[in-house]
Amino acid sequence: MNPRLATIEPSQIRALAAKKRPTSIDLGLGEPTLLPQQRFIDAAARETAVRGMKYTLNPGDLELRTLIARHYAYPGMSEGRNVCITGGSQEAMYVAMKTLLDPARDEVLIVEPAYPAYAKIAQLEGIAVRSVGMPAATEFRYDPGAIMAALRPETRLIVIGSPSNPTGRVITRAAAQSLADALLARGGEPVWILDDELYRELTYVDDAGSLAAVYPHTIAINGLSKSNALTGLRIGWTIAPAPLCDELIKVHAWLVTAANTFGQRIALGIFSEPGALSEQAAWYRERRIAVLAALRDSGLTFVEPDGAFYACVKLATGTDSLAAAYRLVDEHDVVTIPGSIFGASLEGWLRLSWVAPIDAFRDGLARIASAALV
Amino acid sequence: MNPRLATIEPSQIRALAAKKRPTSIDLGLGEPTLLPQQRFIDAAARETAVRGMKYTLNPGDLELRTLIARHYAYPGMSEGRNVCITGGSQEAMYVAMKTLLDPARDEVLIVEPAYPAYAKIAQLEGIAVRSVGMPAATEFRYDPGAIMAALRPETRLIVIGSPSNPTGRVITRAAAQSLADALLARGGEPVWILDDELYRELTYVDDAGSLAAVYPHTIAINGLSKSNALTGLRIGWTIAPAPLCDELIKVHAWLVTAANTFGQRIALGIFSEPGALSEQAAWYRERRIAVLAALRDSGLTFVEPDGAFYACVKLATGTDSLAAAYRLVDEHDVVTIPGSIFGASLEGWLRLSWVAPIDAFRDGLARIASAALV
Repeated sequence: MNPRLATIEPSQIRALAAKKRPTSIDLGLGEPTLLPQQRFIDAAARETAVRGMKYTLNPGDLELRTLIARHYAYPGMSEGRNVCITGGSQEAMYVAMKTLLDPARDEVLIVEPAYPAYAKIAQLEGIAVRSVGMPAATEFRYDPGAIMAALRPETRLIVIGSPSNPTGRVITRAAAQSLADALLARGGEPVWILDDELYRELTYVDDAGSLAAVYPHTIAINGLSKSNALTGLRIGWTIAPAPLCDELIKVHAWLVTAANTFGQRIALGIFSEPGALSEQAAWYRERRIAVLAALRDSGLTFVEPDGAFYACVKLATGTDSLAAAYRLVDEHDVVTIPGSIFGASLEGWLRLSWVAPIDAFRDGLARIASAALV
Repeated sequence: MNPRLATIEPSQIRALAAKKRPTSIDLGLGEPTLLPQQRFIDAAARETAVRGMKYTLNPGDLELRTLIARHYAYPGMSEGRNVCITGGSQEAMYVAMKTLLDPARDEVLIVEPAYPAYAKIAQLEGIAVRSVGMPAATEFRYDPGAIMAALRPETRLIVIGSPSNPTGRVITRAAAQSLADALLARGGEPVWILDDELYRELTYVDDAGSLAAVYPHTIAINGLSKSNALTGLRIGWTIAPAPLCDELIKVHAWLVTAANTFGQRIALGIFSEPGALSEQAAWYRERRIAVLAALRDSGLTFVEPDGAFYACVKLATGTDSLAAAYRLVDEHDVVTIPGSIFGASLEGWLRLSWVAPIDAFRDGLARIASAALV
């Protein structure tokens, strides 16, 4: 057996989710509760009747790749050859880290609080991983100075998510520019950025920076899971400078051959219809207003989300978030995600998702507040 | 960059396919030309309208996993927990090799002629790879004695495909039993078998053995690509003993999260309807009769396929198959796949697929015969 497997702990999210009862209020959900736009699914089914369900080329359908590249229009990577369609953003992350890093010498730096998969992928690949935590004192805002200070000579990749899962933080334009400037000023072999934009369509602030827009050594990853309620479709992508993109495609091809054709047809429908990619964002914007009101009413300390569909709430000082999450599901029938799984900087906090019905969200907050954990 | 990437050569199949003209006869195709069974696609689209497109659990939908396990009913692995649904059989291969082998000490033995991806995956993972070729003299029949003789103490996995892509060879019941007996008699740490059954539904001989049926340390991989003309659906699976299956699922989860839900719905439809999995096999059985007649008429030396939809034909002694394939496409406008890419044992041969219209197949054979290569 591959000895690296023994080093990877099983997912705490799954262990907690398994404790969910039919009566439970589930604030642990990591996927939309909306239905997807059925017109794109029906159109893809009709197309299949005529054209069957053959493979696309390894990197995906060129028309789709081109539409995606032009939609984001990142400097130096706005053509179809800059895009590889992947089996969800998870495979995109995996391929990016596997392609870019030499496990024998390179290190990855994860900006936390962060989605736990980044570190697990590095472990599975035998890549050295370190993290830099954005502090609670500044409400987990992205701090270019702190990120730069954490770099070591062997750091070849910085992983950052904006909007962040779990905190909902979005990097500001000034912070993105400042990080790019500092990295470019550094000289030598470039440090790459893996920019996880999976929640990009769900951004609620005007001052939203984009690393791919300002830093040439960026791999942007994204997908349809969150924007279009299509988590089960497994369509994601990488956007990268062309020479690197060719290598990403090579690894992707040996891993999975190609992303599924049906999903690519749906994606082509969405990217061909202006506004379809962000059509569901209005629902989240409206819901967020009610969510912020509920959070204020609850008396809990919370981070106001700039994006995504999570809100982090603070536990009483010194509370172990994993133990608290188990107590909340066992004794108060509410599922939450402990902050500790997103990195030490979010210990003492819980991640709540707000895609459940608003009354359930309110009720869940009341249970958390009454549990005397805060 | 990951230094292993530099060691992997680009695909010759793709380079040859790129030379195809609109006028070309394409005998290089690796996927069915039939349309898939549309009723399953329409049913999945209707279900999506009601239930959306959420993630399944990492290993896939339990009902589907259970139906698959019970359908094959391999001893010791006939329950849902023995199955992991993957993003096509390519991901299944990748996950199996990555999970099972320790690159620091284990070696994989590939029984050739073989699908080239096995060796490429091993290279990408830094796993030592050796091959054992089944000789042309016995028409590439699987020879348990030759396989056993090729084992070394560090060999932990044997990769074998039945029916074989490229030769169409199927392992006989006696050969499967003999290989199983010899491996079991060996003692010590077991050698695993990765049994690629992707063309299993397309078997045309009665004496078809199954390694998973007789050898307990087997991972069987399969999928819907070839049986149901669904290459673009990217639905495959591993079937494995439960403790190993749990580890496969772990790796699969970090690679791609889960297989696509839409494809799993289609698979559930197919496995729920008796006969649907093998519905298209009749077309191939009928076509094979005409193909064998055309091959005999051509005067070419060929291997009569026990399964799959390929036929290997012999070039004149000493002919370089890669050079021949380039000459055939450049000068005779017919796309073929050189035997050398499937291993040294198939050098001097071409792989032809016979899913194109039968007249085109006949015409292609005539061009190959007239090219004075034989």
